[in-house]
Amino acid sequence: MKSLGIGLIGTGYMGKCHALAWNAVAPVFGDVPRPRLAVLAESSQGLAETKARELGFERATGDWRSLVSDPAVDVVSITTPNAFHPDMAIAALEAGKHVWCEKPMATGLADAERMLAAARASGKVAALGYNYIQNPVIRLIRKLLDEDRIGPVNHVRIEMDEDFMADPEALFYWKSEATSGHGALDDFGVHALSLVWTLFGGVRRVCGHMARPYPDRPLPDGGRRAVETYDIATTLIELENGASGMIALNRSAWGRKGRIAVQLFGPKGTIAYDQERMNEVQLYTTDGDRETQGFRTILAGPQHPPYDRFIPAPGHGLGFNELKIVECRQLIARIDGDPAVLIDFEDGIRIERTVDAVARSAHAGAWVDVG
Amino acid sequence: MKSLGIGLIGTGYMGKCHALAWNAVAPVFGDVPRPRLAVLAESSQGLAETKARELGFERATGDWRSLVSDPAVDVVSITTPNAFHPDMAIAALEAGKHVWCEKPMATGLADAERMLAAARASGKVAALGYNYIQNPVIRLIRKLLDEDRIGPVNHVRIEMDEDFMADPEALFYWKSEATSGHGALDDFGVHALSLVWTLFGGVRRVCGHMARPYPDRPLPDGGRRAVETYDIATTLIELENGASGMIALNRSAWGRKGRIAVQLFGPKGTIAYDQERMNEVQLYTTDGDRETQGFRTILAGPQHPPYDRFIPAPGHGLGFNELKIVECRQLIARIDGDPAVLIDFEDGIRIERTVDAVARSAHAGAWVDVG
Amino acid sequence: MKSLGIGLIGTGYMGKCHALAWNAVAPVFGDVPRPRLAVLAESSQGLAETKARELGFERATGDWRSLVSDPAVDVVSITTPNAFHPDMAIAALEAGKHVWCEKPMATGLADAERMLAAARASGKVAALGYNYIQNPVIRLIRKLLDEDRIGPVNHVRIEMDEDFMADPEALFYWKSEATSGHGALDDFGVHALSLVWTLFGGVRRVCGHMARPYPDRPLPDGGRRAVETYDIATTLIELENGASGMIALNRSAWGRKGRIAVQLFGPKGTIAYDQERMNEVQLYTTDGDRETQGFRTILAGPQHPPYDRFIPAPGHGLGFNELKIVECRQLIARIDGDPAVLIDFEDGIRIERTVDAVARSAHAGAWVDVG
Amino acid sequence: MKSLGIGLIGTGYMGKCHALAWNAVAPVFGDVPRPRLAVLAESSQGLAETKARELGFERATGDWRSLVSDPAVDVVSITTPNAFHPDMAIAALEAGKHVWCEKPMATGLADAERMLAAARASGKVAALGYNYIQNPVIRLIRKLLDEDRIGPVNHVRIEMDEDFMADPEALFYWKSEATSGHGALDDFGVHALSLVWTLFGGVRRVCGHMARPYPDRPLPDGGRRAVETYDIATTLIELENGASGMIALNRSAWGRKGRIAVQLFGPKGTIAYDQERMNEVQLYTTDGDRETQGFRTILAGPQHPPYDRFIPAPGHGLGFNELKIVECRQLIARIDGDPAVLIDFEDGIRIERTVDAVARSAHAGAWVDVG
Repeated sequence: MKSLGIGLIGTGYMGKCHALAWNAVAPVFGDVPRPRLAVLAESSQGLAETKARELGFERATGDWRSLVSDPAVDVVSITTPNAFHPDMAIAALEAGKHVWCEKPMATGLADAERMLAAARASGKVAALGYNYIQNPVIRLIRKLLDEDRIGPVNHVRIEMDEDFMADPEALFYWKSEATSGHGALDDFGVHALSLVWTLFGGVRRVCGHMARPYPDRPLPDGGRRAVETYDIATTLIELENGASGMIALNRSAWGRKGRIAVQLFGPKGTIAYDQERMNEVQLYTTDGDRETQGFRTILAGPQHPPYDRFIPAPGHGLGFNELKIVECRQLIARIDGDPAVLIDFEDGIRIERTVDAVARSAHAGAWVDVG
Repeated sequence: MKSLGIGLIGTGYMGKCHALAWNAVAPVFGDVPRPRLAVLAESSQGLAETKARELGFERATGDWRSLVSDPAVDVVSITTPNAFHPDMAIAALEAGKHVWCEKPMATGLADAERMLAAARASGKVAALGYNYIQNPVIRLIRKLLDEDRIGPVNHVRIEMDEDFMADPEALFYWKSEATSGHGALDDFGVHALSLVWTLFGGVRRVCGHMARPYPDRPLPDGGRRAVETYDIATTLIELENGASGMIALNRSAWGRKGRIAVQLFGPKGTIAYDQERMNEVQLYTTDGDRETQGFRTILAGPQHPPYDRFIPAPGHGLGFNELKIVECRQLIARIDGDPAVLIDFEDGIRIERTVDAVARSAHAGAWVDVG
Repeated sequence: MKSLGIGLIGTGYMGKCHALAWNAVAPVFGDVPRPRLAVLAESSQGLAETKARELGFERATGDWRSLVSDPAVDVVSITTPNAFHPDMAIAALEAGKHVWCEKPMATGLADAERMLAAARASGKVAALGYNYIQNPVIRLIRKLLDEDRIGPVNHVRIEMDEDFMADPEALFYWKSEATSGHGALDDFGVHALSLVWTLFGGVRRVCGHMARPYPDRPLPDGGRRAVETYDIATTLIELENGASGMIALNRSAWGRKGRIAVQLFGPKGTIAYDQERMNEVQLYTTDGDRETQGFRTILAGPQHPPYDRFIPAPGHGLGFNELKIVECRQLIARIDGDPAVLIDFEDGIRIERTVDAVARSAHAGAWVDVG
Repeated sequence: MKSLGIGLIGTGYMGKCHALAWNAVAPVFGDVPRPRLAVLAESSQGLAETKARELGFERATGDWRSLVSDPAVDVVSITTPNAFHPDMAIAALEAGKHVWCEKPMATGLADAERMLAAARASGKVAALGYNYIQNPVIRLIRKLLDEDRIGPVNHVRIEMDEDFMADPEALFYWKSEATSGHGALDDFGVHALSLVWTLFGGVRRVCGHMARPYPDRPLPDGGRRAVETYDIATTLIELENGASGMIALNRSAWGRKGRIAVQLFGPKGTIAYDQERMNEVQLYTTDGDRETQGFRTILAGPQHPPYDRFIPAPGHGLGFNELKIVECRQLIARIDGDPAVLIDFEDGIRIERTVDAVARSAHAGAWVDVG
């Protein structure tokens, strides 16, 4: 295994998160060569230089295209706004680089399809940033399912709720404009679907409903503007494996900060999880005597890899940012040709097609096949 | 206020529950005359006599029709299987008695409509047994909504889950037969809808989905029989007041024992409740500084009437059966012409029409107006 | 089994609670003759008559001594203030009646010893009201211990906290006077010790500490008066069975309403319980694979007798008052010579001696043998 | 602010944790120069070189004394076993380096006093690693106390429980030898006391009790050896500020993985915290109407600095290792002469003297002044 050369485009929260992961992946895992943080690109040379110092990159550039073609770069982290993803990812892939692009792929299906074509043509790894699936606790859930602990799941409920759009008097901004997408559906739905995809695979049919809790919002200069997106989306689903279920999304849910509540029902038990307590999973099984059956709260610990690479003691807790370090290690594994849990462009397009089907379903008021 | 004479038909769990309520309503509330437990009817004279002694009734009969016409009886508690409700309730109302009938009204809408007609014709109180709405904590939720603590609710989620049908190898019995109804939808849906009705009123449109987690179940003598009902039902809803929402029902949900999880989202806060912790409610509001906002767990106490009639100290907890005592007190209030929270036949038929609309919607795979 | 004749002295909260239990024990359990509610005594004839009607007693008296000697009375429920317990209990026992007296036995050890002597001399059942130990969940804990599920307990922690003395500006009243006792220690300590006694037996040595969170409190007419009791008491303990532990009591603990938090540690697992969620118990055992070990939340259900006598469905919840009905059934069993879980005067005096030892220990600042 | 040169001695879990912090402090905070990871020392040159590559250090040495005197090193991270702390810390301080030493200071008070003398003589920063106090949630608790949200705390309870010594059949190892210290008391007590120190200051008097859940443990070659340390320690405390309290420690508590349960009672409210849910704090205050008072669960978010430096969105969760990055930033602030929350050798010795007083108290069976 040779040391990988890294290029990072974008230094917002997700850029920082990628940088932290590239800095930490070798110390945490101890089984990969320390990556060389080669080049950082930002919108200007000045900003790029400041950020390069802060984040530990050797060189800086105000021109992302030069980064993409830099021979010192093996992997390009793309953490810019979604609209930039297609050009950057395609250029990087065409330059023969691996790509690690934040989700969602693009602002429209057509662009996403172009990205997938470029990935196929390149033969390079093209991975998407879906942190949540990298949680050791989610990996435990997968393992419990694989081991048939609760039997084949027949019903799935996922809720994803936050409250950053909950204040009806918050000023109108781009998230309420139709150009930003559908609303909660694409903002959150891809995360919920990334879990469905990781645990069960594809969705066969959907019947969605979208709602606007607030018809309009105030403008900075007075007056109000009609809201064009939907802060609430609720969807009935049928999975390809035959299970039924429901996905409920609400970005105007006061008090919910990072809730992703998952309930999986099977013939031998139930699994429940809430991202707000990301180091815990609830498991109920029919094993043992009826007197003592109950949901058990399993605290993440070294017996749930790769928690052990972070902390040798159980119950001490990983953080959200640390999931990106796990994702980074999975990406390196994939580049090395090893098995890896990762949502790549092939999987990602499936997720985005499902989002698209829900939107069409909601507008039609009818069930739609995902296709 | 004169002392009411009580007739009880049926002594299964709900019959016992009614008897306990009639025994306890005067000691608990201290503001009503102690009812006279006049007559108890069961399927045979012998059983009736045994149960009368146990439950404290003066007389016993094997003939419910004689109970219904007994001059000593002012109120008839009907706790027999659902199929018997129409005849008994109509006879009692025609005999000029008040009726307290367990939910649901009947096994079909037509019978329920006949019961409503009899109630209207009689001018008597015709109440249904919907315990859950009598919880002091639900009364608190109503009060918080009335006081506009979270603003007008724009989104509602209700889950109701138990696990008595969760074992795929449990023998086929009548709950899997089509003659018993739709499945989880009518078994549980009426409870969920009783809360919606109590808190918000009617449902305008529904789009339901029903699923069978297990296609067949074993027969006592070997072999298996196809399951005809649906143990899972999930429904998108739009309320008459404009709010959107979702009702998810599952009677094959391992580990859930009496879960009725309610989430109410408004522009100023969120309320959450779970019947498995029936003495608690969760409230999040946007009051105060952002540093200390969070869901607060409110424990039921004397400041939440009528908890105070049961226990003078907070946090000690009421039980499910005690909700029936509250309902009994509400029934007496209604008989006395006082304000009362109660689901009567007028309200009950609205609930049953909604259930019917969901079933039609699920079969059609389309949205249906409740009408 | 003949029907017992009941006499009730006192109609405050606990009197009401006894009355509800005597009214409900036959309907709930179905295996005992319905008691005859014969005589009720209150401080005046008028009050007694009002309460007799409300609570369902046949006759009323303003003279408790006539109740105690009434031939129709087999069992005397004593629910008057603690200072009256000795005279009433001794008179009842001397009149050949069974006694069901609310805890604590008396306001001083000497009186309690006289009561015990009277009980021994009478040969009658002399039981104390300790509701908490009657919880089906506590019975489950006993069973789990008996079945060696967590091995012999080596460490015990009990916290009991409420907040009725938490407001420093609440007016001075009798609970702050030295004549009322030590403070939290006797107010709460007997409950904590009733659980220790029921689960493990006696306490060998104690080292207590008592504290006054507020040195004085306002008087109704202005000015302030020094507080003479201790609202906080914390005690190190060694049990007779060798286990170590701690009992922490606080009646000025804001937000705690009825908390009795129990933690039991053994070589094979841990049990935790909190009275504020009285229908749940937490169990951790070392059974099974390490990946899925965790505290499981067991919801009370019909598999935990005598929950089944109240409700046939699990997870629906019993209330605090209903524990008194269980206690009533245990009392009847004891009267009938059957096995019963009950704290009688023999046990009760052990609890009160332990309280006394803690108080002496706290004043001496040293360990004291309970003796 | 110049970039600091870092030397790291030791690469066990805490060494890795320091390395991760030095790698991440600049990217996370963005307001400090990126430290130069200059030299890493391990027990052999070979191991040192491997680890240096992994953890990102420029040079490696098998001789910690050369690291300590290296001109490129400004700060020495000491993460070796406790017995090595005194020599290394004193040598580093004498060489004019700042020291960041993992807790506890030493294996005995005399050595700790020597370390303190060296720190005083050097004028350099001598900080101890006490991660838990760096949690944004603990910082919030401090702020709430400073703002008098619950009034002056009058009672404190802290429990710290894990289960790594809970298996009675686990082989005897050094933690059961008297040379390792007292047992749970020094293993855990310093953490509990670091919180007491951070929130309230010193302890005035203590009365401790230590217990052995298991008298002996198996030896690798058969036979059993008597356990010499105490896996359980419980202590009554009086703080210098007058509050009373209790500290309960148990390292044989099955199911507890990283529990540090804190309860703080004041005249206007209560604060509760559990390290196993380290991104949450419970707050009860007497503000507002009685109907809606309850413990609120506050989820850590950007409004609780320095959470905002890690993640811009609330409720996403920090991990235990990330607290070390916060500590690292505090250390840099202290070096720069800025205010910092940090337990230095002056504070640390107070904690260790308290531990010593508890041990003497437990052996004497009496209260001891901390002095």
